Amino acid sequence: MKLPGQKEFEVSSACENVPTGELDNGTGSGPSPDSPSDTDRGELGVPKDPLLFIQLNELLGWPQALEWRETGRWVLFEEKLEVGAGRWSVPHVPTLALPSLQKLRSLLAEGLVLLDCPAQSFLELVEQVTRVDSLSPELRGQLQALLLQRPQHLIQPTGTRPCQGSAHPREASHSEEAPLKEQRQNPLRRKLPPGAEAGAVLAGELGFLVQPLGAFVRLRDPVVLGPLTEVPLPSRFFCLLLGPSTLGKGYHEMGRAMAILLSDPQFQWSVRRASNLHDLLAALDAFLEEVTVLPPGRWDPTARIAPPKCLPSQHKRILSQLKEVQGPSARHGALAEDRLFGGLIQDVRRKASWYPSDFLDALHPQCFSAVLYIYLATVTNAITFGGLLGEATSGAQGVLESFLGTAVAGAAFCLMAGQPLTILSSTGPVLVFERLLFSFSRDYNLDYLPFRLWVGIWVATFCLALVATEASVLVRYFTRFTEEGFCALISLIFIYDAVGKMLSLTSAYPIQHPGYPAYGCFCQYPDLGGNESQWMRTEPKDRDDISSLDLGLVNASLLPPPECARRGGRPHGPSCHAVPDIAFFSLLLFLTSFLLAMALKHVKTSRFFPSGVRKVLGDFSSVLAMLLGCGLDSFLGLATPKLTVPSEFKPTLPGRGWLVSPFGTNPWWLSVAAALPALLLSILIFMDQQITAVILNRAEYKLRKGAGFHLDLFCVAVLMVLTSALGLPWYVSATVISLAHMDSLRRESRACALGEPRSFLGIREQRLTGLVVFILTGTSIFLAPVLKFIPMPVLYGIFLYMGVAAISSIQFTKRVQLLFMPAKQQPDLLLLRHVPLSRVHLFTAIQLACLGLLWIIKSTPAAIIFPLMLLGLVGVRKALERVFSPQELLWLDELMPEKERSIPEKGLEPEYSLSGDSEDVSPRWALSGEAGRGGESAFVQESSLKSNLSIKPEDLINTIIPLRSSLTQVH
Amino acid sequence: MKLPGQKEFEVSSACENVPTGELDNGTGSGPSPDSPSDTDRGELGVPKDPLLFIQLNELLGWPQALEWRETGRWVLFEEKLEVGAGRWSVPHVPTLALPSLQKLRSLLAEGLVLLDCPAQSFLELVEQVTRVDSLSPELRGQLQALLLQRPQHLIQPTGTRPCQGSAHPREASHSEEAPLKEQRQNPLRRKLPPGAEAGAVLAGELGFLVQPLGAFVRLRDPVVLGPLTEVPLPSRFFCLLLGPSTLGKGYHEMGRAMAILLSDPQFQWSVRRASNLHDLLAALDAFLEEVTVLPPGRWDPTARIAPPKCLPSQHKRILSQLKEVQGPSARHGALAEDRLFGGLIQDVRRKASWYPSDFLDALHPQCFSAVLYIYLATVTNAITFGGLLGEATSGAQGVLESFLGTAVAGAAFCLMAGQPLTILSSTGPVLVFERLLFSFSRDYNLDYLPFRLWVGIWVATFCLALVATEASVLVRYFTRFTEEGFCALISLIFIYDAVGKMLSLTSAYPIQHPGYPAYGCFCQYPDLGGNESQWMRTEPKDRDDISSLDLGLVNASLLPPPECARRGGRPHGPSCHAVPDIAFFSLLLFLTSFLLAMALKHVKTSRFFPSGVRKVLGDFSSVLAMLLGCGLDSFLGLATPKLTVPSEFKPTLPGRGWLVSPFGTNPWWLSVAAALPALLLSILIFMDQQITAVILNRAEYKLRKGAGFHLDLFCVAVLMVLTSALGLPWYVSATVISLAHMDSLRRESRACALGEPRSFLGIREQRLTGLVVFILTGTSIFLAPVLKFIPMPVLYGIFLYMGVAAISSIQFTKRVQLLFMPAKQQPDLLLLRHVPLSRVHLFTAIQLACLGLLWIIKSTPAAIIFPLMLLGLVGVRKALERVFSPQELLWLDELMPEKERSIPEKGLEPEYSLSGDSEDVSPRWALSGEAGRGGESAFVQESSLKSNLSIKPEDLINTIIPLRSSLTQVH
Repeated sequence: MKLPGQKEFEVSSACENVPTGELDNGTGSGPSPDSPSDTDRGELGVPKDPLLFIQLNELLGWPQALEWRETGRWVLFEEKLEVGAGRWSVPHVPTLALPSLQKLRSLLAEGLVLLDCPAQSFLELVEQVTRVDSLSPELRGQLQALLLQRPQHLIQPTGTRPCQGSAHPREASHSEEAPLKEQRQNPLRRKLPPGAEAGAVLAGELGFLVQPLGAFVRLRDPVVLGPLTEVPLPSRFFCLLLGPSTLGKGYHEMGRAMAILLSDPQFQWSVRRASNLHDLLAALDAFLEEVTVLPPGRWDPTARIAPPKCLPSQHKRILSQLKEVQGPSARHGALAEDRLFGGLIQDVRRKASWYPSDFLDALHPQCFSAVLYIYLATVTNAITFGGLLGEATSGAQGVLESFLGTAVAGAAFCLMAGQPLTILSSTGPVLVFERLLFSFSRDYNLDYLPFRLWVGIWVATFCLALVATEASVLVRYFTRFTEEGFCALISLIFIYDAVGKMLSLTSAYPIQHPGYPAYGCFCQYPDLGGNESQWMRTEPKDRDDISSLDLGLVNASLLPPPECARRGGRPHGPSCHAVPDIAFFSLLLFLTSFLLAMALKHVKTSRFFPSGVRKVLGDFSSVLAMLLGCGLDSFLGLATPKLTVPSEFKPTLPGRGWLVSPFGTNPWWLSVAAALPALLLSILIFMDQQITAVILNRAEYKLRKGAGFHLDLFCVAVLMVLTSALGLPWYVSATVISLAHMDSLRRESRACALGEPRSFLGIREQRLTGLVVFILTGTSIFLAPVLKFIPMPVLYGIFLYMGVAAISSIQFTKRVQLLFMPAKQQPDLLLLRHVPLSRVHLFTAIQLACLGLLWIIKSTPAAIIFPLMLLGLVGVRKALERVFSPQELLWLDELMPEKERSIPEKGLEPEYSLSGDSEDVSPRWALSGEAGRGGESAFVQESSLKSNLSIKPEDLINTIIPLRSSLTQVH
Repeated sequence: MKLPGQKEFEVSSACENVPTGELDNGTGSGPSPDSPSDTDRGELGVPKDPLLFIQLNELLGWPQALEWRETGRWVLFEEKLEVGAGRWSVPHVPTLALPSLQKLRSLLAEGLVLLDCPAQSFLELVEQVTRVDSLSPELRGQLQALLLQRPQHLIQPTGTRPCQGSAHPREASHSEEAPLKEQRQNPLRRKLPPGAEAGAVLAGELGFLVQPLGAFVRLRDPVVLGPLTEVPLPSRFFCLLLGPSTLGKGYHEMGRAMAILLSDPQFQWSVRRASNLHDLLAALDAFLEEVTVLPPGRWDPTARIAPPKCLPSQHKRILSQLKEVQGPSARHGALAEDRLFGGLIQDVRRKASWYPSDFLDALHPQCFSAVLYIYLATVTNAITFGGLLGEATSGAQGVLESFLGTAVAGAAFCLMAGQPLTILSSTGPVLVFERLLFSFSRDYNLDYLPFRLWVGIWVATFCLALVATEASVLVRYFTRFTEEGFCALISLIFIYDAVGKMLSLTSAYPIQHPGYPAYGCFCQYPDLGGNESQWMRTEPKDRDDISSLDLGLVNASLLPPPECARRGGRPHGPSCHAVPDIAFFSLLLFLTSFLLAMALKHVKTSRFFPSGVRKVLGDFSSVLAMLLGCGLDSFLGLATPKLTVPSEFKPTLPGRGWLVSPFGTNPWWLSVAAALPALLLSILIFMDQQITAVILNRAEYKLRKGAGFHLDLFCVAVLMVLTSALGLPWYVSATVISLAHMDSLRRESRACALGEPRSFLGIREQRLTGLVVFILTGTSIFLAPVLKFIPMPVLYGIFLYMGVAAISSIQFTKRVQLLFMPAKQQPDLLLLRHVPLSRVHLFTAIQLACLGLLWIIKSTPAAIIFPLMLLGLVGVRKALERVFSPQELLWLDELMPEKERSIPEKGLEPEYSLSGDSEDVSPRWALSGEAGRGGESAFVQESSLKSNLSIKPEDLINTIIPLRSSLTQVH
């Protein structure tokens, strides 16, 4: 198997033209970077090689009807032509048989290798490639004609365009060099980034050859090789593997091997820089050194492996990126100067420079859809929380206040804040606290709103003090343990309240049991038959049951109560005020809206519908569930309890103006005493606001304009005073809805290699979308008359959904579930690989005990101190350091600041599992408008991963550590 | 790297003692069988090698604290020690780096290879292994002491026993050769089959060695090597890989490579027969030839791959088994003799010889649990179908008939039938037909039961004719297309009826709207205040609405209607007969039982609870859902409609005896005319019975006593007459419940290699369990008083569940779902790999059109002819041969008999996907008692696979072809 090209072993002299500057590594297998073809590696400063699209054209039909057919293609993963089905397979990890690689190696070693070939057209290239001594001129002509024959591509049509015959054979003229219409119209083209190059591998059995013919060409200047590839990309690589039929299916497999080699980033990097055959073979050997081998007896080689969630190089890159975070974040100046309000001043300075661009950057169509989406989410939030607040405060506040407050506070925040992408909202913890504060003030006969005003003023004072002293450092002490306790408690309160309120409806609208006196109600006319005292019990009964009341002789009709009253009668009897069917119908509405919201959330990850429809259904799950509930209710027209909405634009509490009087009927000293509950609320506000702020300013969102932790907290404090003075709800940053806002403003590359998600470029950071959302919310106050059609059971259902969604998203819940799984059935979590199961259970049990304690406190009259108890969790967590080793805590929780340095690197071992437990990487919560924020701080690890890179949450178990450290770098 | 053992290249002369008879293949890499270590290969007649348990002991702690620790183990798949967590990883497909295999190869090539070493103890073995020239006597002593040091094993405790220190280091004396207590108590031991052998690989870094030391030993007589392996198995292989620290982690990886090699069936087979080093290396090279290679850039080598659902060798084995089926089935004589009733006679003859053993074989404890399970399922069935039959026939039959009929027919069938494992039941199609027959006879004022008797007699006659002519051949014409039409129609009727009946309850118990006159009902005493005529309308109204009726002066009380009537009064008013809350509560019960049954069914495949609990919850899902529904109903005590149950043991229809009179009030000629509907019913019975029979007698169930198709149909015919004469429901074989019966009687090997399901030995074929089940069902007639507490909405919920479960299990449904999936999101079904999507959609559309047509017919007065229309599907299917190619029909359906020979072998290409679409291999239906049999025939492909071998249903898409052919082999 010696070709005349053998002399070109060193390098085809005609084509030897390697720019030496490009070759930093002559052998091609040395210390090349790990990330040569990663899509966004440009950022790391390494020169970026173009993406390579590789196509395998196979020669089929020997000897009768020779034709070239594209049978495989590669960008990141392999797609195989399903000949029978006429479609591309799903992208999968390519697998090879080892011998085909070895055969390829020997064919290349003996074949023709042209590096930096100057050919300018396919014709030239074909001439160069066929110029081997072993071919007679006649054979050479035949071969050239064959190579120039137009290959058949399967071009998959887009949705609407009919599949017009591209899969059918079509004769091609030999000189047809220009790309064809079908090539140019190939939808795949739009998915490849600009600058992408092609590599073509031609392989097949050709009986008239005496010995195998192998050629590998790297073109100096990539050119479009006519109809050779299905996409008219300039080709950089060309590989020919032909030979007599002795090898059987071997050429197909060798072709695949070549294509897979070219699709390997490391090999591609090397071969782009190779200067001779030796480099090429060294690159192949380096590839072989690193391949993973599956034993034949335990693996079916024809099985297709789905693309892994995370490629090795990406994985390493993430970890290294995380380590880099400390730099830029310190530069953002979270905690910058060593004097009071130093951080705030620096925040304002930095933000001011971006201010004009904060409006100019909003000029993009994407912002319209973002506004629509976030507006709907915000309104849903305002309705839900307003309705709940109205109940919690017995009407001291209500839906109108919720709308007004959301609009005012949100818009002000968008205009002033450090991170204008943040969406303010009433959140679970604040709502819970407000409810407790209200019952406290009712218990002591306090005038609520003036009392609340002072609480707000004190909270603002404390927050300002925290801003002044740059106390954001303390966020580091809230580890996952604390956050999960926080989240779980609030979620449980949500769930408990939702179910409790629902059940309380069954007392308000009692179920009528068959034996009960449910039948009596008639209309009596006292003016006709005499006065009521004439009536007497004719048969006094042992029971004083009203049903057995004998009314004697009365003047009556069977008019319904309202009609009766209108006619001057009086409805009389036990059933007059009973409304049948309401209890069960409310329960049905409650369950329907809850289950529908849950189901719609899951639509997002299902296979059905185009991705746009899926996204809408998933994102608007709570809106849709609410609408359906309302529709069902109005269809049946039953008298279910509805949302209370004021009929005009005035405060919900009758008889107050918009400004809350500073004292009301309260004694003057209460304004001082309000400092105590304010301290508690400050703890909540601080936890809620700062944890969210840390999450929103994460490095993985690639924000250019920097964070403004101090400015944000300052704004919250100022708004606290404003909303308290107007008697509006209190607001802090809402994690879920803010993340949804950012998600709807993602800038992404169009480039989408098959099988890989699009690369994320950044977020449109601006103030306009938020501002417009809140202006729209403000105008929606006039929607109020429509809102009174919303049945309360539907709101309770959404409430329950929020609680369940929040609690099911935290790692704690997963660990509680582990308690009920036999060890054999447990998912292959990294946590379980590194911590003994008994220790995991112990940690979970301690968390459960803490939660039980919190719940008990919450049920006592001392409930209002629960924020203090949440802080107590920090102490418990500290004490846990005596029970668990740092290594264990690293996996179960995070390390507290002092211990951070003791993390052994081994803990970050990047192994992960493909055990089919796809549930573990699926998004945990829909980015819909629900703001069960109580829980959100705690499941940030997962959520942020989901929106950015689809790797296992456990891999980044301690992502938050460097992020938090970033807050304190300058200290 | 030359060891003194180099001279032993050919083979260590001391140990050279290969019994030549064992060596059928000197090179060790030649044509060895594909299945050398398959667990049940013994059946194929190939001598069976023992199972090999391989353990990797690693030398850790150099240089301070040397210790051996077990860090990996293999039977079929790899389990890795999770050092931190102190547990074994989940079994996964082992992956290797290629260089470690190559290093191992060179170390073995230069090392010591002892084949058939006669060592009788670990001490002897250690002495042999360390007898190499490169070691000084001192080093040798040190090495021996080190090797004899007791290794640490992680013995995972079983559920209750506490983990007592087996993971903690323990010093071992050098001469400790007897297996330890912890070894003997290792629960793993019970999972390995008797005769299993061990292989021990010892690897690690040992600084005092100057050059690597490699040794591979095959013991002539396997002996327990003291505490070397965690299970005290006799060791057959021993491999030592030690060396200086130059290789870094290399020894660990080489050790793994050796262990993985040994766990490979092909390598193991070769190395057991190897006669010299050359054979060993050849076996290794053969392994390398077959490995699958994953490219480094697209795969993280640390990822763990879950064990595939089907191993390659098993896969091939299945296909070959299927081809063999034709033989044994023909031997079973399904269609044996060329005269009338020939098949029946042969069935009887064959079955008679097994008759005594049919009772003796039942003496096994497993039969008790089978009886309990099937009894509960049968009773649930009897209740559900009885309740529905009662409604369908307006009380001509009912629950009592259902119990009695099930008991009588079932027991008789178990005693007489060809396949006594079959459970008879009312099935969906027959129930649907009975309902149509009843409405037909009502429309024409026929006396139903006598008419039905004649229909039964005629059906029996037709069936006997089918038996006589051995018409079972025709089953082959019912392809999947027909079966799916059959199933879908019946399932849709189930779903439609369940929802319809539920909604009809809301008319019976109307919802009371607020504006409606729902309030009026009081008790009037006509005897006191005068007679009713005294009352007059004082204000005649424009509406003649009863609510506006002015009653004038009446003598009345508010007593509830029953109490009122008791006192001589008369309830008066529109609400007297309205029962509030029932409609919505019924809806709640309906949804609860439906959703609960669905959820419990899914528990079976969840990760929660021990497998036993999961199985119980999944298997008894409908029973549990029914019980919960009843509990909820009786807890609230509302007057929901309940199941009608006779209070004494007499027919449900009042005034008839147990024997149906042959004519009743019908004209005599009706007994002849009944032949027409009987013809239709015969079609149904034949389809239902024969398809089930084919399924139950499949080769994969490994039945020893053979089938009895003709005898079964004969029994059904006889029982048809009996049940018709007694006015009991009609019975045929029920697929799901019969499969559940067989499943509960599976005989399995105890041997359970880690990561592989147990091997299936066969089924306890006997008549006793079925008989006992039906006797118990008979005695349960006296449970009837309890049954009247079952609310009808609960039964409708179960009914709906049965319909949904049946329809969601057929491929048709999956194809309909494909219509709503964008091509990119579609699962990687084999079907889609081989048939163009447009063709798949066309096929689905044709099926949908046929179904629509059937539904239209079903809605007309001609509904009763629907069985004929089902037969019409066969014609449609035949016509489809003009539209679709045989290749397409092979994937979409099956081929009809004439076309069978034209299947290209390529269609059976055994590729399958690992794309994480685990849903596709999960069991599609719980083996609970529901007998929505209408659907079952069509999803048998899946169900049978599930219970036998967990491979993709699509792989065996045409399983049924050879099975059906088996019915006709002798013809």
